[in-house]
Amino acid sequence: MRYELYYWSTIQGRGEYVRLALEDAGADYIDVARERGDKAIMPFLRGKQEGALPFAPPFLKAGRLVIAQTATILAYLGPRLGLVPGGQSAEMYAQQLQLTIADFVVEIHDTHHPLAVDQYYEQQRAAARKRSQAFREERVPKFLGYFEQVLERGNGRQALSRHSYVDLSLFQLISGLDYTFPNTMRRMQKRIPRLRALAERIAERPNMAAYLASPRRIAFNEEGIFRHYAELDRPGR
Amino acid sequence: MRYELYYWSTIQGRGEYVRLALEDAGADYIDVARERGDKAIMPFLRGKQEGALPFAPPFLKAGRLVIAQTATILAYLGPRLGLVPGGQSAEMYAQQLQLTIADFVVEIHDTHHPLAVDQYYEQQRAAARKRSQAFREERVPKFLGYFEQVLERGNGRQALSRHSYVDLSLFQLISGLDYTFPNTMRRMQKRIPRLRALAERIAERPNMAAYLASPRRIAFNEEGIFRHYAELDRPGR
Repeated sequence: MRYELYYWSTIQGRGEYVRLALEDAGADYIDVARERGDKAIMPFLRGKQEGALPFAPPFLKAGRLVIAQTATILAYLGPRLGLVPGGQSAEMYAQQLQLTIADFVVEIHDTHHPLAVDQYYEQQRAAARKRSQAFREERVPKFLGYFEQVLERGNGRQALSRHSYVDLSLFQLISGLDYTFPNTMRRMQKRIPRLRALAERIAERPNMAAYLASPRRIAFNEEGIFRHYAELDRPGR
Repeated sequence: MRYELYYWSTIQGRGEYVRLALEDAGADYIDVARERGDKAIMPFLRGKQEGALPFAPPFLKAGRLVIAQTATILAYLGPRLGLVPGGQSAEMYAQQLQLTIADFVVEIHDTHHPLAVDQYYEQQRAAARKRSQAFREERVPKFLGYFEQVLERGNGRQALSRHSYVDLSLFQLISGLDYTFPNTMRRMQKRIPRLRALAERIAERPNMAAYLASPRRIAFNEEGIFRHYAELDRPGR
């Protein structure tokens, strides 16, 4: 099966969680918009193609099946790529962790877009500073503390005892936050030893190391979800 | 199987999507916090219980299984309660629609909490007015237009040809928006005939009609996600 991933060609965005799964597993896939341009995405959004109607990219074409929403794509790919432990209990735990990652990603996006999704950051900078402060002080410790606890506790490790797409997504989350809020993340350093160890382990997996060093890995940039605006981070010491 | 739903006892919130599924199917369940108080939720959030660690309610206990995240709970219950058509394609389409509803719900929440999840509405009213305007003008037509298109197009109807938990969630979405933004929704009226018909049909299902008329249905209120603040709606004519 050659999978077709449809996602914007210039950003990591939500498509990156799918790219990491496909790359880590060494799957046969085409990153369609990077080969044919973003216009290849539009017929699907306009309902000109058969199958499920996506609200937005990313979506995956697997044969005749069109699958949208990052977490649904990963739930589909997980068992097929060996990226989730077997059994319903583990699959559902992986899925709920992925949805909690998705919730966190929305809040990360909203730090630079608190007032309007469709307007530029520059039109909402003052509000972005307020939202980012609350996010850094309340939400980062809450979410990262939660994932650290999942890794720490016996049941979490049992359900996700083997490598999974959740590990890859947590790697992406930590990498993105390091880029976006370096001062905040330095201050969190001692509170998330298991997340740090996981991120390092993932980066060293052969397929991942090759991908991250390749031109297929788009650099973080200020068009994506993880944006570095120094004024939104906590002040350095 | 007697299901145990854990969700805050005083609001509809995200728990309501699960309540509607359980009620519509006539399932045997306990709404735990409404019987024993919200404190019954805490041991799970603190990791004092076995099974998956929830980040937040709602979560469902089904035997020894703990399932968190609304969409994961519905994906689990769907086939068991006859609330999703059979087959992987339909189940995945239902799931991606449910996740798009969840994305919309986050944006609805953020209209009254644009700056900080953990602060009061009264502390962010000016920003809430800005966010709500952009939301009403750009996001409501985009999301509702999408769901209307899903109902309109052949493939959508084929995949979800039978009654499903997505229908129940769309009913909740329309009901909540009618409460929250009555003027905006009046103006949308002619553009969403299929969503309107669906919402009416759902409200007339015997189990749903009985539930909606019962004290088990918590009224919309200004502690939940769908809040009516007249200053956030478009002005009446």
